[in-house]
Amino acid sequence: MDNLECWSGLASGGITAVPGFKVSGVHCGIRKNRDKRDLALILADKQCNAAAVYTTNKVKGAPLILTMEHLKNGKARAILCNSGNANTCAPNGLSAAEKMVNAVANELKIEPADIIVNSTGVIGVQLPIENIVAGVPELVKALSRDNTPAAEAIMTTDTFSKSWAAEFELGGKTVTIGGIAKGSGMINPNMATMLSFLATDCDISSEMLQKALSQSVKISYNQVSVDGDTSTNDMTAILASGTAENPTIDSAGEDYDKFLHVLNLINLRLAKDIARDGEGATKLLICKMNGAESYESAALLAKSVISSSLVKAAMFGSDANWGRILCAMGYSGVHFDNARVDVGFSSNTGEILVCKQSTGLSFDEEEAKKILGEKEITIDVSLCDGDFSAEAYGCDLTYDYVRINGDYRT
Amino acid sequence: MDNLECWSGLASGGITAVPGFKVSGVHCGIRKNRDKRDLALILADKQCNAAAVYTTNKVKGAPLILTMEHLKNGKARAILCNSGNANTCAPNGLSAAEKMVNAVANELKIEPADIIVNSTGVIGVQLPIENIVAGVPELVKALSRDNTPAAEAIMTTDTFSKSWAAEFELGGKTVTIGGIAKGSGMINPNMATMLSFLATDCDISSEMLQKALSQSVKISYNQVSVDGDTSTNDMTAILASGTAENPTIDSAGEDYDKFLHVLNLINLRLAKDIARDGEGATKLLICKMNGAESYESAALLAKSVISSSLVKAAMFGSDANWGRILCAMGYSGVHFDNARVDVGFSSNTGEILVCKQSTGLSFDEEEAKKILGEKEITIDVSLCDGDFSAEAYGCDLTYDYVRINGDYRT
Repeated sequence: MDNLECWSGLASGGITAVPGFKVSGVHCGIRKNRDKRDLALILADKQCNAAAVYTTNKVKGAPLILTMEHLKNGKARAILCNSGNANTCAPNGLSAAEKMVNAVANELKIEPADIIVNSTGVIGVQLPIENIVAGVPELVKALSRDNTPAAEAIMTTDTFSKSWAAEFELGGKTVTIGGIAKGSGMINPNMATMLSFLATDCDISSEMLQKALSQSVKISYNQVSVDGDTSTNDMTAILASGTAENPTIDSAGEDYDKFLHVLNLINLRLAKDIARDGEGATKLLICKMNGAESYESAALLAKSVISSSLVKAAMFGSDANWGRILCAMGYSGVHFDNARVDVGFSSNTGEILVCKQSTGLSFDEEEAKKILGEKEITIDVSLCDGDFSAEAYGCDLTYDYVRINGDYRT
Repeated sequence: MDNLECWSGLASGGITAVPGFKVSGVHCGIRKNRDKRDLALILADKQCNAAAVYTTNKVKGAPLILTMEHLKNGKARAILCNSGNANTCAPNGLSAAEKMVNAVANELKIEPADIIVNSTGVIGVQLPIENIVAGVPELVKALSRDNTPAAEAIMTTDTFSKSWAAEFELGGKTVTIGGIAKGSGMINPNMATMLSFLATDCDISSEMLQKALSQSVKISYNQVSVDGDTSTNDMTAILASGTAENPTIDSAGEDYDKFLHVLNLINLRLAKDIARDGEGATKLLICKMNGAESYESAALLAKSVISSSLVKAAMFGSDANWGRILCAMGYSGVHFDNARVDVGFSSNTGEILVCKQSTGLSFDEEEAKKILGEKEITIDVSLCDGDFSAEAYGCDLTYDYVRINGDYRT
């Protein structure tokens, strides 16, 4: 996966880097702060092949239920999303989701079933549907080729908007993929919801699009942990318009692999941005797990390390407390040779090995502290079980995480 | 299980409430602070039937490996434990564990295989075995019927020692069970290890003792979560001397049930003390899950709620943020009817229902805040899936948790 990072085609354009897509983001009155956009729309010039991956949480937001219904035919033309209210465990949630979709469908003169919908924010509170319906004309009127308003409108307590795009060649044609995402946090904190919306002009069947998205989510968003809480409203969705006129991807092969490769690249960058911007985070943590007996083992082990509150707090304190890393691996449920584990830390400042063959090395604590003082830290773990590797992405556990999530909602 | 709490026989005596047991605790020089005892010994007048339950972490401390070997015959006479160093992932760990056991066996003139041993503290650092061996004569000399020194010597960053005992009748004979425990935290923080050591004069076979201990651990210690990190050194062990001369318990039946009932009572109190004294905790959280389709479902759901960082942070902030509770249930992996969940909060101040049939109620936020401002909070969840209930025990997530675990080790 490392070579992805070196690929030079990555740009920050987001959805509108893709020809044939317009977006908008407005304030319609769900959020109290009038300067905060709270309603986003992504629209393709034509109906697209579409795919989505949803939260595994058994309690699912009403808009996810509606979107699953709409995507049964693998087609969609628009993505609609509000922030400030999750429309989950709220009275008449499904009916509210339908109303916001219908308002946009009427205004755009498209089928309601061609709209993917989601909501992010506080749960258990009725959606102010009148405000949304009243805001739809302005939302549609504001559609443009400027990516920013939509990227901002889906943000909750994110401290920066997250957009990436890339161009590549397929069968002599230029294909573009672009995406926006939001991470964890809310002004009225309730839960950390991860959303990402992607667009491409690639000609790819709904089936292969779904396959690519599912594969890509596995190595990117599913390897992110901010606090271990899986939201009721997590969703990744992608629209593929096909206007790039590349040879249609309708089966596995070289073109599919190339598409997946670039999709992974974008999703990994969005996923890392989500981790980096986790609630209260001061550091991005990357755990690289090498020498595992399978990808699944490597992925679970890396995720367990990145999810440990004790590891996260140690990283906040720049403490090379590697015992917690072995401990988190030990309770992951994964089999590994626990007598042959090497652990090191690296960052821009340098790298240091602190544990060899599962036994502590004496190391320069000051040097370790300097390495761990950086904003992006890699925890390097090597096993002796096989040739598989995986990465997971997280952030440190800080006073601000407690402050943000412990503060009273009102 | 509720009636256990009403039972009046509970006392704070600990191990030495049981006739025929002596304990001691000394400072031998593992900890830097000379006022902190760091070596504990529990000794029975005679060889006992013995049982233990160990951490499920695949990385296990060396003393646990040795204890498993020693307990193969279901017999033991003493429990030896140091704090300040976990003797895990450290050079020559098994040999160090053997050395400390042999030193005590020689001094007491008992078999090394009759000693249960454990260590708690920093991992990856060589055990200062010379200090321990040098301290053994004093440790043995200090054996007495005063429970306190041993209860204190196993503490790490615990803010109070944890001891409970109870007397009951079996076949006209008075039987006593007593125990001590330690929870989460260290002065040189490395990981939260849970230990509990129990003694009884009950006449019970090793097999039934193991069965009772395993059953009891399931509803008590296994339902505690401080930070979701399962230590490498967790252990519960029990010695049963048989000197109470009750009719031997060697099969299931009324006497076994009575023994288990009192054992549960003590383990539940120790478990709650561990949760209450979690690192940085200001509040004990109890989640009662009612109306589940099985005990296992109820237990997993309650544990998922109590383990959620977002729930824990909300409780710290006295925020009745019930959406996070449904969310944590949703990602627990347990099947339940997620449209029919009621959620309430209660404490000494009162009780309040905030969610009915999975939909938010409008409630008095000030009243809720008052209820959640207490030191012991119950999260009451009712399902409509069956008649099974379970409880789980945890604590809030506070600035102090981050401080304790983020501070540099030196």
